[in-house]
Amino acid sequence: MPKICVSIAAENLEQLENDLSEAQNSAADFLEIRFDFLRSSDFDEALRLADRIKSKSVYTLRDESELGKFRGNNEERTFWLTRLANAGPMLLDIEFNILRINDELMSHFKKNNTSILISWHNGKQTPNLDELRALMSKMKQMSKYIKIVTMAESIEDAISVLELYRDANDSNLIAFAMGEKGILSRVLCGLYKTAPFTYASLGSEVAPGQLSIYQMRRLYYGMFMKNGIGEIH
Amino acid sequence: MPKICVSIAAENLEQLENDLSEAQNSAADFLEIRFDFLRSSDFDEALRLADRIKSKSVYTLRDESELGKFRGNNEERTFWLTRLANAGPMLLDIEFNILRINDELMSHFKKNNTSILISWHNGKQTPNLDELRALMSKMKQMSKYIKIVTMAESIEDAISVLELYRDANDSNLIAFAMGEKGILSRVLCGLYKTAPFTYASLGSEVAPGQLSIYQMRRLYYGMFMKNGIGEIH
Repeated sequence: MPKICVSIAAENLEQLENDLSEAQNSAADFLEIRFDFLRSSDFDEALRLADRIKSKSVYTLRDESELGKFRGNNEERTFWLTRLANAGPMLLDIEFNILRINDELMSHFKKNNTSILISWHNGKQTPNLDELRALMSKMKQMSKYIKIVTMAESIEDAISVLELYRDANDSNLIAFAMGEKGILSRVLCGLYKTAPFTYASLGSEVAPGQLSIYQMRRLYYGMFMKNGIGEIH
Repeated sequence: MPKICVSIAAENLEQLENDLSEAQNSAADFLEIRFDFLRSSDFDEALRLADRIKSKSVYTLRDESELGKFRGNNEERTFWLTRLANAGPMLLDIEFNILRINDELMSHFKKNNTSILISWHNGKQTPNLDELRALMSKMKQMSKYIKIVTMAESIEDAISVLELYRDANDSNLIAFAMGEKGILSRVLCGLYKTAPFTYASLGSEVAPGQLSIYQMRRLYYGMFMKNGIGEIH
């Protein structure tokens, strides 16, 4: 059964506590904590609340430049990303476009042995497959965990992004397209061998086209019950 | 790898010949020949053309009442369906709503040992899951091969139709929702254990939301290459 990572986008600590407990009841395999939805004055307490589930959590401080809500300057960003890394999550999500120009962060992650999920987002469109492949190849040099997300303007876009899985090789790739026309890819990406998990929400979507964990489970359940995936007659 | 049945909706014999040869080059697992797109005066010649691939073909004379183009009266329909059955295709597609009120056809199919794919279509909406389950249970009494197709007005509809697979048991079920919001279900239905195949087009869609065999193959390929479907880390 594909693994599901539930995105938690709480806007305050009370909601965070509720969401963490709901996510655990939902039998999520992994959690993503979107720190950028919180105020930075709440980050320390949020880290404390998340501590007991950090070994199965992705910590994310998504920058405004990549569809997130974090608006700090470079210094603040580096400060907080270092702190999130030091907390020791399963994975720290870090934007490729931020990491590649921040040597300080890179050397801190290395020194600290931080497992990073290197991510890249395009909220407007889906570049052609050659461009995406070139991008993935650069990302591979920075981590074994790679996330590439585009906006689907057509079903063809959603199919195209999934073709990245053919070249994933030993990487743990999460690649899908957002938006209504990308929903197909959000469900399918969990089925590729090299995908560590797919993302889902608890209820209302955190990103465009995101399904809930309950919808995902309903889709996967019939597929993986009994004798496993479709050995066709 | 899921099996793909390419729908051929040729409007004349020349196009049928071209489509049959293109479909074979596409490495389709199965073909569906939509006789209702042809004039009935061409049916005999079409049967002759299809003869060499009949053992991997579904013959369909979709009635106007179920989104098809066949407008004959009951007598004509019975005449032609009997003839299609006698030709000996892998499966003869027959609408549940037609078969259940036509004892003559039913006894002919039994006598003739015709393998039938009993089908049901709703081109306007997706009934709730309880209704669909009740329908499926009646259809199961008529054949091991069942096709249930609805129109998706939402992603939820597409998910709901796929839940029929949980109760398919020993039946060979093809269940999906049409329309843009149903595309997800057209791809996923091929992945369920009890699905004999999913439908695709050669190029332009024969039914709303249908993908081409080339799109389907691209989606499935990365999923089933190497060590098979996603055993997740």
